[in-house]
Amino acid sequence: MTSTRDRTGPDLDPGTGVVLHREDLRARVWTALETFLDRQDARLFAVGYETGELVRAVRELLIGGKRLRPAFGYWGWRGVGMPDDDRMVTAAASLELFQACALIHDDVMDRSDTRRGRPAAHKRFGALHGASGWRGDGESFGTGAAILLGDLCLGWTDEMFFGCGMEPDRLLRARPLFDEMRTELMGGQYLDLLEQATGGGSVPRARRVIQFKSARYSVLRPLQLGAALAGADRSLLAAYEAYGAPLGEAFQLRDDVLGVFGDPAQTGKPAGDDLREGKRTVLVALATERGTRSQGRLLERHLGDPALDPAGVQRLREVIVATGALGEVERMIAGGTEKALAALDASAIDPQADVVFRELAAAATTRTV
Amino acid sequence: MTSTRDRTGPDLDPGTGVVLHREDLRARVWTALETFLDRQDARLFAVGYETGELVRAVRELLIGGKRLRPAFGYWGWRGVGMPDDDRMVTAAASLELFQACALIHDDVMDRSDTRRGRPAAHKRFGALHGASGWRGDGESFGTGAAILLGDLCLGWTDEMFFGCGMEPDRLLRARPLFDEMRTELMGGQYLDLLEQATGGGSVPRARRVIQFKSARYSVLRPLQLGAALAGADRSLLAAYEAYGAPLGEAFQLRDDVLGVFGDPAQTGKPAGDDLREGKRTVLVALATERGTRSQGRLLERHLGDPALDPAGVQRLREVIVATGALGEVERMIAGGTEKALAALDASAIDPQADVVFRELAAAATTRTV
Repeated sequence: MTSTRDRTGPDLDPGTGVVLHREDLRARVWTALETFLDRQDARLFAVGYETGELVRAVRELLIGGKRLRPAFGYWGWRGVGMPDDDRMVTAAASLELFQACALIHDDVMDRSDTRRGRPAAHKRFGALHGASGWRGDGESFGTGAAILLGDLCLGWTDEMFFGCGMEPDRLLRARPLFDEMRTELMGGQYLDLLEQATGGGSVPRARRVIQFKSARYSVLRPLQLGAALAGADRSLLAAYEAYGAPLGEAFQLRDDVLGVFGDPAQTGKPAGDDLREGKRTVLVALATERGTRSQGRLLERHLGDPALDPAGVQRLREVIVATGALGEVERMIAGGTEKALAALDASAIDPQADVVFRELAAAATTRTV
Repeated sequence: MTSTRDRTGPDLDPGTGVVLHREDLRARVWTALETFLDRQDARLFAVGYETGELVRAVRELLIGGKRLRPAFGYWGWRGVGMPDDDRMVTAAASLELFQACALIHDDVMDRSDTRRGRPAAHKRFGALHGASGWRGDGESFGTGAAILLGDLCLGWTDEMFFGCGMEPDRLLRARPLFDEMRTELMGGQYLDLLEQATGGGSVPRARRVIQFKSARYSVLRPLQLGAALAGADRSLLAAYEAYGAPLGEAFQLRDDVLGVFGDPAQTGKPAGDDLREGKRTVLVALATERGTRSQGRLLERHLGDPALDPAGVQRLREVIVATGALGEVERMIAGGTEKALAALDASAIDPQADVVFRELAAAATTRTV
């Protein structure tokens, strides 16, 4: 399918005239999620009215999402030349539930208090326990509820994806990728736990963790899922790989930079939160590798210190800058983005999707949140 | 399909001559699980060799299973008159992974140390942390790994079920039940958390919790899934409901009795573990409802006390017996089993399956483990 519209003009579907600007897709993803959650709300009500709190918590978490993964999923479909399709919007929207599971469980594992500027799920339910004057330990209650909430989101991901209404043969083609995405994310998260437990290692190790823990399920897998549903051929799948793999890494590297240097008002997390949690990022691995002995000791001593104060955060930031780690990561981000864009140049991706992929590459790597 | 074999003789499939005795089904379920886990092992190896520990942990947990849910699933299919089918064995085996997720996450939430006579998953990974001399808190590491392990099992459940190889239209029929089963289990577990946080309530409330937290996914849902895959008609589905609903409750009530009075050598859990965890079972709700003021105080004071010693367990057991709670629960179990068997009498279930359903009813409600 070719498009005749001006590359800088509004994104109109030539068939339906529907505006497909990114903001519009975000609204449609949200509508799909709301419709799905309403159904789950009714289903859970049959179990007990008290479960309404679970659906409310998911809804509030989802409000704050950037819809990046659904965008890659949806445009992965469009890039093949497929027309706009509400079923694809639904399938793509399910990726927000997948991310929600990852975030909720991750926050329990990392003991993060804040997510998207609000209390993390386990904190939210812990506070409910306190405010209700219930017995027992509020923290345990919060953890238990958050585990269940993540489980619900995980189950709902495939319910929503495979219930999007598409033909069985399309769904069947997407199945192996979907299963792979789920298992590799959990495997990547386990590697991340190990990195923190062992004190972290080399830069290649840190890159492997972000690959499986974040990069793939954020960009490449959504693209491939859209492409598989659309029935893309090998050459397009190769183009997506060439575009999505470096972009996914660049996206996560930007996330790591924001976790250390980001503005709390924008990230929705306290300043330097990743340092306090002791996340073994590429940034940290590079600083450790390149630092002097005394810089290494400083990192060793303060990384993962839950009581790290603003002055301590500042000292660690200085080490990360002084060792050249920040500069190197910024170069990696720029290099990855460039590689991704070059892959688009050489591809047969639908021209309308091509424009959006360029926008998405910029949004994923230059963002402040 | 009718069967000509002697009702007391070996269970031979008239078509293939395959022995379908329960022990044989168990072996086939195990083979299906092993094959599936081998595939996941290879997939996770690509993420990192360290993830092998995750697959080992699932395997060891699964070894100890009774294969009750796969049996109900498989015979739910056979009861419709369908022939033996390896794909059905695979679909049914996936229910062991679903239960594994529930057990692993439940043990984290209840802070249970033991499962099936071995350390619970979070304890196992906590011990790995200690033995490896890793940094940070071993308990947090264990909890994190157990959350991921449960997530893997949850994702693998639908991967295995929907990847069993059956025709898409069969799978499509089972989908709504499958989704319902998953969501209602999580909802039921949340109610259970609330019961413990609020100190528990009436007998009807306790019955509602076991309904959603255990009874349905143990008996009725597996039966219905098998039936849906087989394309059962309404009358058979009604018969399964009449058999499965009371049997599921009786099964869980037996579990509750074992949790208080069971022999540790058989249950694989320390004596009186449910009392120590403060589980708000029907047994406890009945004892509270029927007890004198001083018996009530005793329950109130000692239930959920993690330091409850054998003498304390004994005192609580005596209250549960003296109030008539144990007797009442035993009557409920007997009544539920009777209702289930009466439903078989009135049904058009395949005669071979009918024999097995009677055996399964006895096994589920008179068991010692």
